[in-house]
Amino acid sequence: MSEEQFQKGWRLKLHEIIYGTHTPAGKLFDIILLVVILYSIIIVMLESVPRFDLKYHGFLNVSEWVVTILFSVEYVLRIICIKRPSKYIFSFFGFIDFVSTIPKYLSFFIGGSQYITAFRALRLLRVFRILKLVRFVGESNNLVRALKASRTKIFVFVFFVLIVSVLLGTIMYLVEGPEHGFNSIPHSVYWTIVTLTTVGYGDISPETPLGQFIATLIMIIGYGIIAVPTGIVSAEYASARKVDKTVDEGRSCHNCGADIVRSDAEYCRKCGQKLNDD
Amino acid sequence: MSEEQFQKGWRLKLHEIIYGTHTPAGKLFDIILLVVILYSIIIVMLESVPRFDLKYHGFLNVSEWVVTILFSVEYVLRIICIKRPSKYIFSFFGFIDFVSTIPKYLSFFIGGSQYITAFRALRLLRVFRILKLVRFVGESNNLVRALKASRTKIFVFVFFVLIVSVLLGTIMYLVEGPEHGFNSIPHSVYWTIVTLTTVGYGDISPETPLGQFIATLIMIIGYGIIAVPTGIVSAEYASARKVDKTVDEGRSCHNCGADIVRSDAEYCRKCGQKLNDD
Amino acid sequence: MSEEQFQKGWRLKLHEIIYGTHTPAGKLFDIILLVVILYSIIIVMLESVPRFDLKYHGFLNVSEWVVTILFSVEYVLRIICIKRPSKYIFSFFGFIDFVSTIPKYLSFFIGGSQYITAFRALRLLRVFRILKLVRFVGESNNLVRALKASRTKIFVFVFFVLIVSVLLGTIMYLVEGPEHGFNSIPHSVYWTIVTLTTVGYGDISPETPLGQFIATLIMIIGYGIIAVPTGIVSAEYASARKVDKTVDEGRSCHNCGADIVRSDAEYCRKCGQKLNDD
Amino acid sequence: MSEEQFQKGWRLKLHEIIYGTHTPAGKLFDIILLVVILYSIIIVMLESVPRFDLKYHGFLNVSEWVVTILFSVEYVLRIICIKRPSKYIFSFFGFIDFVSTIPKYLSFFIGGSQYITAFRALRLLRVFRILKLVRFVGESNNLVRALKASRTKIFVFVFFVLIVSVLLGTIMYLVEGPEHGFNSIPHSVYWTIVTLTTVGYGDISPETPLGQFIATLIMIIGYGIIAVPTGIVSAEYASARKVDKTVDEGRSCHNCGADIVRSDAEYCRKCGQKLNDD
Repeated sequence: MSEEQFQKGWRLKLHEIIYGTHTPAGKLFDIILLVVILYSIIIVMLESVPRFDLKYHGFLNVSEWVVTILFSVEYVLRIICIKRPSKYIFSFFGFIDFVSTIPKYLSFFIGGSQYITAFRALRLLRVFRILKLVRFVGESNNLVRALKASRTKIFVFVFFVLIVSVLLGTIMYLVEGPEHGFNSIPHSVYWTIVTLTTVGYGDISPETPLGQFIATLIMIIGYGIIAVPTGIVSAEYASARKVDKTVDEGRSCHNCGADIVRSDAEYCRKCGQKLNDD
Repeated sequence: MSEEQFQKGWRLKLHEIIYGTHTPAGKLFDIILLVVILYSIIIVMLESVPRFDLKYHGFLNVSEWVVTILFSVEYVLRIICIKRPSKYIFSFFGFIDFVSTIPKYLSFFIGGSQYITAFRALRLLRVFRILKLVRFVGESNNLVRALKASRTKIFVFVFFVLIVSVLLGTIMYLVEGPEHGFNSIPHSVYWTIVTLTTVGYGDISPETPLGQFIATLIMIIGYGIIAVPTGIVSAEYASARKVDKTVDEGRSCHNCGADIVRSDAEYCRKCGQKLNDD
Repeated sequence: MSEEQFQKGWRLKLHEIIYGTHTPAGKLFDIILLVVILYSIIIVMLESVPRFDLKYHGFLNVSEWVVTILFSVEYVLRIICIKRPSKYIFSFFGFIDFVSTIPKYLSFFIGGSQYITAFRALRLLRVFRILKLVRFVGESNNLVRALKASRTKIFVFVFFVLIVSVLLGTIMYLVEGPEHGFNSIPHSVYWTIVTLTTVGYGDISPETPLGQFIATLIMIIGYGIIAVPTGIVSAEYASARKVDKTVDEGRSCHNCGADIVRSDAEYCRKCGQKLNDD
Repeated sequence: MSEEQFQKGWRLKLHEIIYGTHTPAGKLFDIILLVVILYSIIIVMLESVPRFDLKYHGFLNVSEWVVTILFSVEYVLRIICIKRPSKYIFSFFGFIDFVSTIPKYLSFFIGGSQYITAFRALRLLRVFRILKLVRFVGESNNLVRALKASRTKIFVFVFFVLIVSVLLGTIMYLVEGPEHGFNSIPHSVYWTIVTLTTVGYGDISPETPLGQFIATLIMIIGYGIIAVPTGIVSAEYASARKVDKTVDEGRSCHNCGADIVRSDAEYCRKCGQKLNDD
């Protein structure tokens, strides 16, 4: 029983360091983790540059193994120090942590550099863990609230833009045709979205006077409707600013790892676990 | 008389399914219709891609016939189950439904694939019927109200932008001239709008120092005035949010097919027909 | 004296037609003028298209002479029917009306098509007279008030953007250099403004990794600061909407031709002339 | 003592001219300085244009020496007429003034035009001193307050945009690959930011259908999230407008050179020096 008590105390301490962010050790852990993640992303990026890969292949390979082992240790510790490991393993960040660690081991068994490169890309998703640090800033709450409130409206808007793009794209296909680079309707729709969003690559551009006239109309439409999402978000954000509640960040549930947002919370809002137990 | 009563009951039921959206059957009908429309759009798109058309011409052709027949049946049923068919036939959606169905039949009598392709494009307008489903979301009301309120202002703004474009386009034509790709005043005006709306294809770009200086001015003007429509829509939307009334959607007039917006409506706001009659 | 009285009455009537817009005749005059101006702009545009000019040179030339004579008559009548012609002649629109009419006559005496084309462009400024009609809409008042209120702030902003552009342009010149198309500092500043305003022609684009990294920073800066003018105009417009006063449009001072804005005005706000005198 | 008194009076007068802007002499000094700075920037720019440098090398060189000597004199006077010179020397503007003056002297001792050109660029930072004049306008206060209030939120937003760019860039690298110009992950991330910010150079553009589809998604995301910074700045600026306090500009502390913002200030807010002493 005392053994169990000890282990529980040891696991609780580890839990506070790895999941929590309100102790100095927990903060340090998260900052170190952030640095290692950034380092691993830079390595993946440099590996994709042929010039660097030729010159420093050995160094990059060793670096990646070191990072992979560090992440493996972190992954195992995360599972150990939580009461219900399945809650973590099948959570969003649990999944990202897993797919960030596994590809390098797989490259050992399965040859074929093509596939491994593809897996490496997924490791970049690890950066989203940094967003947990972003919460510290405490400023993004209003932003998230405003975006959530305007979600449906933005969707309706994007849906309408897509319908308009399909229609205008078809008209441009009929006007310009394959001889001016508008090879097919999907290709013309791609061009319409490039124009409507004011990106304007210029890989395809209208050449007939009528096509240029329609392109002009599309641009002015795009210029006008760019106001719509902005108007929505502005209004929602302005009203979201008024519903600002103070939150106590840094604690997390010992049972399922969820963040404790309200400072007066006594039970975890995700799994119902009594908080502050030892 | 009982015969008539029966037929009326039968037509009323069909009306509820096809026009209405507040019964399970009516919802199902609209969702199936939506899927068929999307399918027909994808087929029209794929037909325009030479690679696909060569390989799957037979399949695409059969698919289109199936879709055309389904739409024909729907069109006839829509006319049958409404009291005054002319109200539907000459409405916006009645017209779109007709031009979405007819081109394939016309292709039977009239040769010349060129024309048929043109008609096919019109069939894409059918997607606008999806917007009836969009109303479900119930969120687009404020948006529509804000856009309606700012309609005139946006028009004044676009009008002013066009005048500025004609003036600046002419100046650029005089500065750069045909030897740098500014072939004519209309072409220069096209370039000016491409620049002013920050699209910037790069198919034509100024090459003389003076031309580049004027281009810089145009860009900064465009950057500045992009704020105007946004400011208008933001302000209008913010005030439209406050005039939000609850509406009961899903009912439609049995006489003319118009949507019944207010839940306490007893008469159709379009044709004066007493509602809830049977 | 009766002669003078008659002439005064005749001139007053003409004044109401030409300058005023609150009588049916005055409205008709302005609409006809608008059509003729648009027609003259289209002719100038078509003349610049080599294909059209070759084919229809005679017709275009005659059209232009007709338009020029109509404008000349209008210009003379405007001077006759006003009490103090100098007020009109040296006003903004008086100057535009003059330079819109004179080039065609000058082309008679002075050879050299080059110069005449340049003058033709100025004739396009005539379109601004259409803005007098725009006032009808009555909606642009808030817009103008918002733009006037944010004038200084927009200027400070544009000034800051220019300083940033000069600095970033110089850095890009040092990083990329003439061998990648950044020929000189002014040319690099041009590229920076093209990038900062998100126009992005692609006539010059960074090729070194460091240059592309700096370009990325410039884009994100541009993306961020595009919010500033929008924020200003939105806020100003929202507060301008609340200060909306009803105005009586359509009257104009018989003495100096200025528009009478307030319906209860008894004296011209520009020259102090008592209004409603006859 | 009278000597010291005189010198103090002389230095105080000079201080008012150079640092202060509320006397006619102080205003004149700042305007002359502004003109000389603009002149020096134009010279640096013209020197970088090969055509100009070949033709007017002598004149440009002499001009630069004149400007350099003027700036040297100004720098020395600034140090003399302030009580604690170190406060100025190690301030932001003190540093800029120094690096704006020194490169020309260094070019005398150290050969190698390459380095000198690099230093010349720094001299352009001198333009920021103009911003001191901008303060006159008195309009930029709300703007600065709004930008300061939204600083953290904009940072969170930019951080999120960067993460999304890295992820989407990696996916595009895997989809398009080096054979379509997406040479490496950093290069693909560069392309993603070019697209997301709607700049769209077109130096690289997707060529596979899947790549064009993903590009379309990136554009629509970019179009949607352009609303976020605008919404933030709009809301912050609207609330900043309400906290507008009248300030008395033009005075500056005799001890440390800081600007005195409040008209009722009796002590310098930076160094605690009693103001209005003589």
